Amino acid sequence: MGTEKMTNLATSQPATVSAKTIDALITPSLLLDRNRLERNIQRLAERAAKLGVVLRPHMKTAKSIDVARQVFPGEPGPITVSTLAEAAYFASHGYRDMTYAVGLSPASALRAMEICHRTGADLKLLLDTVEQADALAEVRAATGVTPSVFIELDCDDHRGGLKPEDPRLLEVADRIVAAGARLVGVLAHAGESYGLNTPEALVQAAENERAATVRAAETLRRHGHACPIVSLGSTPTAHFAENLDGVTELRAGVYMFFDLVQHGVGVCAVDDIAISVLATVIGTKPEKGWVLIDAGWMALSRDRGTASQAVDQGYGVVCDLQGHMLADVIVSQASQEHGILTVRPGSGKPMPDLPVGTRVRILPNHACAMASQHEFYSVVSGDSPEIDARWDRIRGW
Amino acid sequence: MGTEKMTNLATSQPATVSAKTIDALITPSLLLDRNRLERNIQRLAERAAKLGVVLRPHMKTAKSIDVARQVFPGEPGPITVSTLAEAAYFASHGYRDMTYAVGLSPASALRAMEICHRTGADLKLLLDTVEQADALAEVRAATGVTPSVFIELDCDDHRGGLKPEDPRLLEVADRIVAAGARLVGVLAHAGESYGLNTPEALVQAAENERAATVRAAETLRRHGHACPIVSLGSTPTAHFAENLDGVTELRAGVYMFFDLVQHGVGVCAVDDIAISVLATVIGTKPEKGWVLIDAGWMALSRDRGTASQAVDQGYGVVCDLQGHMLADVIVSQASQEHGILTVRPGSGKPMPDLPVGTRVRILPNHACAMASQHEFYSVVSGDSPEIDARWDRIRGW
Repeated sequence: MGTEKMTNLATSQPATVSAKTIDALITPSLLLDRNRLERNIQRLAERAAKLGVVLRPHMKTAKSIDVARQVFPGEPGPITVSTLAEAAYFASHGYRDMTYAVGLSPASALRAMEICHRTGADLKLLLDTVEQADALAEVRAATGVTPSVFIELDCDDHRGGLKPEDPRLLEVADRIVAAGARLVGVLAHAGESYGLNTPEALVQAAENERAATVRAAETLRRHGHACPIVSLGSTPTAHFAENLDGVTELRAGVYMFFDLVQHGVGVCAVDDIAISVLATVIGTKPEKGWVLIDAGWMALSRDRGTASQAVDQGYGVVCDLQGHMLADVIVSQASQEHGILTVRPGSGKPMPDLPVGTRVRILPNHACAMASQHEFYSVVSGDSPEIDARWDRIRGW
Repeated sequence: MGTEKMTNLATSQPATVSAKTIDALITPSLLLDRNRLERNIQRLAERAAKLGVVLRPHMKTAKSIDVARQVFPGEPGPITVSTLAEAAYFASHGYRDMTYAVGLSPASALRAMEICHRTGADLKLLLDTVEQADALAEVRAATGVTPSVFIELDCDDHRGGLKPEDPRLLEVADRIVAAGARLVGVLAHAGESYGLNTPEALVQAAENERAATVRAAETLRRHGHACPIVSLGSTPTAHFAENLDGVTELRAGVYMFFDLVQHGVGVCAVDDIAISVLATVIGTKPEKGWVLIDAGWMALSRDRGTASQAVDQGYGVVCDLQGHMLADVIVSQASQEHGILTVRPGSGKPMPDLPVGTRVRILPNHACAMASQHEFYSVVSGDSPEIDARWDRIRGW
């Protein structure tokens, strides 16, 4: 409780706005380690270059122009978005080549083309049914914009999309053209790869994703469709693909930050995880081995992705203020604004002494989910206590 | 895709800002049914009056001045908050009598008293250790505000707090006084009541919460502490308490909206649930019995509170556009922006025909978690398609 905090408190702004060091941040706060972010970005950029494909990063994890600028320090590059709010936001910052990787409804296609009309962006849409294709004629007439469209593929029974051998693939392609829209390619996402945990299985999932996507593109081309873009990706397969012959672009999002789920899959080390929530100890129950912190699911998210992995990390792994792991300490329970720290069941280790007021950092199960609970990142570098910058996030649809 | 939507799309504002009907809302959007909200508010207000206690509603669920105005149509009344951001927000709207129901750290106590200094609010703090009590002397000296303090009680091994018979109770009380702070009472929360599901068990949990809290208050009074406020509450026990003798106030939050977890506990009917997420069908996989919607965990939250109840409701129960349940249809899977609807396992019912573009409403597992994923409520009344109002929410800490 030094002068620094007092000064912040004396203003009508939250302390975070002017905090210069981690000590002065209010808790809970979301931290982003710039060194780790840069390393993770560099790693996948090098892989994409080596594999000979364009990297089209997914902005659904970071949702921040400042993070996008780390990926593209010069001109804005091709990106993927998960909401039309992201599309409008990145368009306002000069991004033109975007893919909206969620299946369209007639209303969302209309909103998307309106964004293109207003900003000059080329926002590519996704669909897998003739009904969606047919709706594009009206969208085109209403907005005066010719929609660019991907056909969504299903390579692993994960979610939406057509199998490459599905006869509806050609039917949908023909109806896209008939509606006056532009068929730009095929797009797959190996979402089931999150459930894997050996290099062999991940290499195989990546090859399966590649083979299915290229097969669909070849079918379309045989029937006279140009299919210039062959797009695939998930963070696990992107890091394990051994070749991407026939593929033109790679998509991934969580790779910028990584998280405990990706660690459990085998894609990253714990020390690669770039975001964490800063929290303060607000109580202890020594008789139960509990330490209470002021970060619950509102700050950490309800995501429990590691629950189905070999090592269940609870609501997150606990580190000290400098970001070094406290051996076997996890957030084992969370209510809205409270977390309960315990030693992992079966660990022989004692609970470290964490008196009221101690600050800790919590690593996420799922970076997309943790980050979405916060309005901004406080940017730090390694174990320095200094806050370099505040980077805002967007939300909504 | 009528003229209404086109008009919205032609502006630079999101369609939601000006949407007059549900048809014109972008999806996903958060809906709040005013009729159900009013009924739920009325129900607990009547119970509190009958039980002879003050109702101090918890604003952590609604986080909205407009919802607070439904609870207090005249002058602002006593409220509970879960963050200092809520405290500052409600103080700016004239609320003066507030309890911050999360254990204090030295830094949060300082921020809290600064809010009091700036706004004239009486923001009561919570603690359960002598270390926290001792820190109040410095907080008082630094801000010139005398902190009002509750001692947190543990009535059911749920989270923090002291047992009523713990000898530290008196020690903590003495140290609060020694620090120059004001001991205003004791506070308990029967958080374990969420795990119950019979009226008998809920009546018993409510009586246990009452007895423990009154016992602690009596101990303090025997030792010369005034202990004017005896505060308890959770939504389940608030609705099942048969008498609150010795108690002065009742706290509850989720009761305003209710949710599927509260339905599973037995506190409300499904038709009492006042919030839902409006979503649009974006695909179908008839061979799997799947319908895909544009609401995933980003809109619904990751909360799976019903997973441990007798009936697992997946990521939520599906209703038609007017809010009437589709028999046995639930959101069985969710990724960031996609939900997968299926018929509940074991149901003999067929999946209803829900073509692309169809709009549905999803009821929450946990109202606090679903609402926290959104920036505002679109207020509707029953099955009318009209949107009465847009009520903003706050977030952050």
